[in-house]
Amino acid sequence: MCDVIAFDADDTLWHSETMYVAVQGEFKKMLSAYQPEDAIAETLYQTEIRNLESFGYGVKAFALSMIEAAITLSGGQIPARDIQRIIDLARSMLETPLELFDHVEDTLKALAASHRLMVITKGDLLDQETKLKRSLLADYFTYVEIVSDKTPEVYRAILERHRIAPERFVMVGNSLRSDILPVLAIGGRAVYIPYHLTWSHELSVEHDPAHDGYYEIEHLGLLPALIEEMCGG
Amino acid sequence: MCDVIAFDADDTLWHSETMYVAVQGEFKKMLSAYQPEDAIAETLYQTEIRNLESFGYGVKAFALSMIEAAITLSGGQIPARDIQRIIDLARSMLETPLELFDHVEDTLKALAASHRLMVITKGDLLDQETKLKRSLLADYFTYVEIVSDKTPEVYRAILERHRIAPERFVMVGNSLRSDILPVLAIGGRAVYIPYHLTWSHELSVEHDPAHDGYYEIEHLGLLPALIEEMCGG
Repeated sequence: MCDVIAFDADDTLWHSETMYVAVQGEFKKMLSAYQPEDAIAETLYQTEIRNLESFGYGVKAFALSMIEAAITLSGGQIPARDIQRIIDLARSMLETPLELFDHVEDTLKALAASHRLMVITKGDLLDQETKLKRSLLADYFTYVEIVSDKTPEVYRAILERHRIAPERFVMVGNSLRSDILPVLAIGGRAVYIPYHLTWSHELSVEHDPAHDGYYEIEHLGLLPALIEEMCGG
Repeated sequence: MCDVIAFDADDTLWHSETMYVAVQGEFKKMLSAYQPEDAIAETLYQTEIRNLESFGYGVKAFALSMIEAAITLSGGQIPARDIQRIIDLARSMLETPLELFDHVEDTLKALAASHRLMVITKGDLLDQETKLKRSLLADYFTYVEIVSDKTPEVYRAILERHRIAPERFVMVGNSLRSDILPVLAIGGRAVYIPYHLTWSHELSVEHDPAHDGYYEIEHLGLLPALIEEMCGG
């Protein structure tokens, strides 16, 4: 039996990383006069990691990191109009129509008939709330939890607050680091749906293929049958 | 009888606007070569308001607005090192030690003995979580709600989620627009503690002095006696 099925949002319900990759492409073009492409990618990544603790996740943090990286990479030569361009790119990321994954609606509709559904997502509060509204999926979810990080403690606190037993809780997501391992660590269950583009920071975790603690499927359309198997009977 | 006493955080439990004012002072100095002081203040304010919908509240949004305003005010002449300076100022805002208001600890300790306490604050999720941790006040609060806006609907949803009757709910804060009026609108009770520095956007609301729906005190030290009077007996 399962009480609650929780979903990560970015790159689990809708595409997100594609947008970051596209904007990074624009960023690389903009900086190509100053540095080779791999130096641009590396400096941007290092700047993002260094800023994680102060600025956290999301589009605004990404914008500030791009601006800092542009200043570093250009040796302070980047003109103000290019900085403005970076801010405009960030704003466009917040306004781009959401692209839902295939099968999302059918899967949520099917599962919502028999389970309480939850979203657990990290990032900017306003940004994530707005995306959930724009997705038109909000009505499927009994609970929405927007968190600044996805650690075992954060999951434990959410489950305690809603009085959900870990063994009756299933988390579905595309990140081993954020969606799968911390949930297993507190005795919950997890379904991993790998995504072909996942931010390298989210991948930086040892994946032990012998670890049998979680399920893996190729796409959301396969989830209702798996949940039936995991939870049914 | 009152079940829950909720507090706004910024400029109610600890100083926040002082920090924004200090950073704006640095910003004005930086731009003084390009424009007179009142034009700088006005452009920054207009940029912040225009960005509220996309970027929301908090330090990261403020940083992006300062950068945009600097580009506008300098006609695109602002050098990259000044943009970096703005980002460093934003980072320092997130790292500055919190300055609690007088009486905060005694008041929370006294009230926590007889009531459940809550924080309801808007802004960046990570930023507000970090501040609450750094304040060392977190243990006084049974609930912490970080929201992207403070509308009657948002307050209603919080009360419903925690099954609190509006007439047994008291909100304490420094903003008529965000802390007092929306709570009165859903039948709750409110205590207004004016702050000498309040962002002009938060003041842009008609204050009807004949309106008797809320209490007003000068500082937090007076709250336990007022709560006794409002809720006791």
